[in-house]
Amino acid sequence: MTTARPTIAVLGGTGAEGSGLALRWAHARYPVIIGSRNADKAAQACAQIVVLCVPYAAQRGTVEEVRPALEGKILIDTTVPLVPPKVARVQLPEGGSAVAAIQALLGESVRVVSAFQNVAAHLLQDLGHEVECDVLVCGDDMPARETVIKLAADIGLRGIHAGPIANSAAAEALTSVLIAINSRYKIPGGAGIRITRLEGAEH
Amino acid sequence: MTTARPTIAVLGGTGAEGSGLALRWAHARYPVIIGSRNADKAAQACAQIVVLCVPYAAQRGTVEEVRPALEGKILIDTTVPLVPPKVARVQLPEGGSAVAAIQALLGESVRVVSAFQNVAAHLLQDLGHEVECDVLVCGDDMPARETVIKLAADIGLRGIHAGPIANSAAAEALTSVLIAINSRYKIPGGAGIRITRLEGAEH
Repeated sequence: MTTARPTIAVLGGTGAEGSGLALRWAHARYPVIIGSRNADKAAQACAQIVVLCVPYAAQRGTVEEVRPALEGKILIDTTVPLVPPKVARVQLPEGGSAVAAIQALLGESVRVVSAFQNVAAHLLQDLGHEVECDVLVCGDDMPARETVIKLAADIGLRGIHAGPIANSAAAEALTSVLIAINSRYKIPGGAGIRITRLEGAEH
Repeated sequence: MTTARPTIAVLGGTGAEGSGLALRWAHARYPVIIGSRNADKAAQACAQIVVLCVPYAAQRGTVEEVRPALEGKILIDTTVPLVPPKVARVQLPEGGSAVAAIQALLGESVRVVSAFQNVAAHLLQDLGHEVECDVLVCGDDMPARETVIKLAADIGLRGIHAGPIANSAAAEALTSVLIAINSRYKIPGGAGIRITRLEGAEH
């Protein structure tokens, strides 16, 4: 990544998670294109980085639709395979990870990075609040992961190298656990996760 | 659970994780039976709570072997479905969770609770150290989960209600993520997890 800020297209950028991320990146002075699922294709084509923030049911359809615009780019996929109505129950898809399935679909010409599954949307939307949640960053391409960790850092979130794209299953499953915890403990802000013992480690 | 301390049988109690848990419970003055996989069956039968700490490859065989001794009890299953040599890669079994599969195998007469997957064994073994890791506690039976949360608290660990047994997939997957993080960041103590924003929440 060059030092110039890349343009980020947020698909599903009018939803809670997408608009929160878009707001924070815009605040950090990134050029941000907010797309609904049918966002202008020419605009999407301008972006260097595409962020997918649509509901699970729309994930694959959206990717297939914008596929030509993804070629050679980084696709940050924030999808969590929640299956309503039991969203507090882990229900991973066959194969284990909804995001790994998209990497398999797109092949090597698109570098898919999984991130931001565990960050509560309404915390992102409130710039006055610290989010208190680490971001597990999974992907098979190391420089792409580094790019996403920088994008997280620029909006005040600690991104952590969490292994290959298959490991996205952990972040996806954790979201249902956090929903279960929020419900059980009535946590107003929404629970998050922290990786412990990282301070002082070699980064 | 009565206020008297129940007897705990730790199967695989000579391994790293099992011996660490056994040491801590013994230190908290629980009667602990440490079993290798072929531990004396009469001794196992005395226990009110059985803890499974064997490698994934031995999980099902061990359970089938001790099955008569499990009837009516709580089985705490700490199994992580690591598939060597790629232990830093999430490779959940078909169906999603190794522990949920054991609950399905045993049926309702045994209350299976998933816990302790993310706690580094060598930290458990060192009584002088705080472990700095929350314990995600998953199970379909609420009183059984409460019992396990108390067992965790008695050895200095914060257990958290993390939903039904299916949610064990999240804890199991997280272990590979933590292994990936330990390797990447060279964390001497072993990384752990914390759930944020729980303080002050209704417990």
